[in-house]
Amino acid sequence: MTEVPPPYHMSTDDFRRYGYEVIDWIADYLDSVDDRPIISEAEPGQIRAMLPDAAPEQPEPFDAVLRDLDEIVMPGITHWQSPGWFAYFPANTSPPSILGELVAAGLGVQGMLWSTSPAATEVEEVVADWLVDLLGLPESWKTTGPGGGVIQMSASDSTHTALVVARERSSGDPGKMVVYASEQAHSSIEKGSRVAGYGHVRLVPVDGRYAMRANALQGAIEDDIAAGLNPVAVVSAVGTTGTTAVDPVRAIGEIARSHALWHHVDAAYAGTAMICPEFRHHQDGLELADSYTFNPHKWMFTNFDCSLFYVADRGPLIDTLSIVPPYLRNEASESGEVIDYRDWHVPLGRRFRALKLWFVLRSYGAEGIRHHVREHVALAASLAERVETHPALEMIAPTPFGLVSFRHFDGDEATDALADAINDSGWAYVTPSTIDGRRFVRVSIGQTNTTAEHVDRLWGLIEQVAE
Amino acid sequence: MTEVPPPYHMSTDDFRRYGYEVIDWIADYLDSVDDRPIISEAEPGQIRAMLPDAAPEQPEPFDAVLRDLDEIVMPGITHWQSPGWFAYFPANTSPPSILGELVAAGLGVQGMLWSTSPAATEVEEVVADWLVDLLGLPESWKTTGPGGGVIQMSASDSTHTALVVARERSSGDPGKMVVYASEQAHSSIEKGSRVAGYGHVRLVPVDGRYAMRANALQGAIEDDIAAGLNPVAVVSAVGTTGTTAVDPVRAIGEIARSHALWHHVDAAYAGTAMICPEFRHHQDGLELADSYTFNPHKWMFTNFDCSLFYVADRGPLIDTLSIVPPYLRNEASESGEVIDYRDWHVPLGRRFRALKLWFVLRSYGAEGIRHHVREHVALAASLAERVETHPALEMIAPTPFGLVSFRHFDGDEATDALADAINDSGWAYVTPSTIDGRRFVRVSIGQTNTTAEHVDRLWGLIEQVAE
Repeated sequence: MTEVPPPYHMSTDDFRRYGYEVIDWIADYLDSVDDRPIISEAEPGQIRAMLPDAAPEQPEPFDAVLRDLDEIVMPGITHWQSPGWFAYFPANTSPPSILGELVAAGLGVQGMLWSTSPAATEVEEVVADWLVDLLGLPESWKTTGPGGGVIQMSASDSTHTALVVARERSSGDPGKMVVYASEQAHSSIEKGSRVAGYGHVRLVPVDGRYAMRANALQGAIEDDIAAGLNPVAVVSAVGTTGTTAVDPVRAIGEIARSHALWHHVDAAYAGTAMICPEFRHHQDGLELADSYTFNPHKWMFTNFDCSLFYVADRGPLIDTLSIVPPYLRNEASESGEVIDYRDWHVPLGRRFRALKLWFVLRSYGAEGIRHHVREHVALAASLAERVETHPALEMIAPTPFGLVSFRHFDGDEATDALADAINDSGWAYVTPSTIDGRRFVRVSIGQTNTTAEHVDRLWGLIEQVAE
Repeated sequence: MTEVPPPYHMSTDDFRRYGYEVIDWIADYLDSVDDRPIISEAEPGQIRAMLPDAAPEQPEPFDAVLRDLDEIVMPGITHWQSPGWFAYFPANTSPPSILGELVAAGLGVQGMLWSTSPAATEVEEVVADWLVDLLGLPESWKTTGPGGGVIQMSASDSTHTALVVARERSSGDPGKMVVYASEQAHSSIEKGSRVAGYGHVRLVPVDGRYAMRANALQGAIEDDIAAGLNPVAVVSAVGTTGTTAVDPVRAIGEIARSHALWHHVDAAYAGTAMICPEFRHHQDGLELADSYTFNPHKWMFTNFDCSLFYVADRGPLIDTLSIVPPYLRNEASESGEVIDYRDWHVPLGRRFRALKLWFVLRSYGAEGIRHHVREHVALAASLAERVETHPALEMIAPTPFGLVSFRHFDGDEATDALADAINDSGWAYVTPSTIDGRRFVRVSIGQTNTTAEHVDRLWGLIEQVAE
């Protein structure tokens, strides 16, 4: 490598040139992603072995970097943006979201305080408030009321934050504090509880639809009180990760109120569906919640990371998280007229994530998002119907949103063989999982570009293997 | 607004067209940013007032979104990427970093597990290991040894994570646990301690250079033990936020070892400087640390967010944070041959942040980064020298890196007048702060494009106002 003279910054002319090239690269990628085998076939260590042990001493031409992106990185990519993506939940991106992320990276503002870029805070307030109306959330959760929404990195962060605030609102030894969630709750509840130092997590039994049994919650709380423990928080799921089960939010909320528990609602995946009024009965009782999270970075065409966290009352949140050293003091903050989002989560720094969400909401419009969400849910319903009428298959849980959960009548081996055959196809990817000690196949329909054609093709394969 | 027919996704042709436009927009922005008044003049609520109260029902043309970016958002932007940025610490972006973020947004992979995109994990391992050599960190911190590095969102997250692991390694009531840091430690130590549920944070007195007095730490630990408390963790700063003071890492590490305290080192800003061997004496004793954090998103030309978190032993970290539900079980994870970065921090989901850091390290090369860091430090030294020889000004702390901290001899009012005049100029921005009850001006030199010309111009203004 020959030595390059300083300065070493890429010129803006080169940035334009390579910028166009990268835009074309992404456009080509998105156009061709359904022709690629979805699951990377890389072996452990294979990508690493293609990279040198030490960083280059001298600058390398950007062409070489882009070449290695194709030759070294791409073989190690599993294609979440493939329309054959039926695994986990979607982690959708979309063109307007990509462009929003790009603008945010170019501006490079750090929105820790209102004053460090007022637009970063105010656009975030506005989109958070827009979403209150779009999803039919309680009006008091707007930043113009006592509550408010903030963008966090993930639902795990939002849930952890809620549990920390709940812990601080209570008193005594955290080792005696208890968090309740259903047996089907996401692992982030247990992780967040452990990180926040709770002594106990009580996983409450579920009913036949995998929703929390409210009377079991009531019993567990009473047992814990009798045992000298301190019930502090309960997490309801609107759409569990296992099967998109919906906990009885209102009944849980009433129990939480009667025992002064913090009630956090995890709608990480299904929250997006509430943009369609016909799904809102699933969130009945939200006005009894203290906090709530949903992830536009799952199903709302906004690339990771973008998790909304709402609180009904921002007071306890800010009381818990606000610490103001001298170098962060400023007139606007001290006036009390502005929001400093630094005080709404663990990190201090924050990038301008609201921009991509604003780009998406404007570019799709509420109707555009509704259209695609309804299409995904209809596709899931049609797949569920086909599964139900198939002699060798059975649904293991209802399909309120976009997830179809089923098994083969012949048992675990046949069920796993089904999942393996789908995943070995290269053009579709599902997640095999376990519930009640038995295997099942999770087919999550919701990737940005998934259409009836992709679901029909998947069904063709399922039928073929199931016989 | 007329109704648009579905589908509502932006076509890839439009993505190309608007993508080029956004690339040009950013190139023009970066070329012209030093002509813009750095500090937004927006009043509280001004940006918000220009936005509608509700999201649009119908899709809007992307031209309208980009027009509003200029007309509504830009007046609310404070320009962190201006070469006249001398405030806080830098939050640098650079062309290769922007392009790395763009590719990551386009790929939209979610690297929670190795198996969900092996390259996302392995490129991250590789850049983390590269940085161990580049910064002269202990060899055992590589992922190929017992330790390892992971990208987190911010140093606040890294520090919080370290404090949670330390809490779990200890036992008993967290209300009796104590965290130690200097009086000059970053607010994230206090915030992280509070979030992790520690009962006590002890701010240890500093010496005349604002570095922690190791004997005062020793005394505080002994006093706390005598009072029945439980000393659990100590945080050393290599470059405090107030004045870039450097705590005696080795002495603190020895005290930590003798009392079995977890020793976390916060080099969020100054860590980047260690790419130049001549600064490494400031981190002498790192082999006695249990964890360490530095932020490439400050001074290493990599846009927010990108904070490296290293542990000397990844065992306790993973033991604390690993929870594996059925839908995340997979062969690669169970083989133990791969890293699942989900278990290295609070969030589960993660985007491919290593890509931009890899782009930066390759595009600049180690020599390129060294060159610019040395230039920034030399500029700071030259400004410090001018301050020292000026009859009306005095330095209040040494300048080991890129921060120049000084005051006016006439007192707080004159010092604030100096900061105000600089900030009112429109083309330079500094942070006024307070130390030992007296005001001072923080001039942080390290923005990607800051050159001698910008510093000379700043000095011209300082001289003019100081007289």
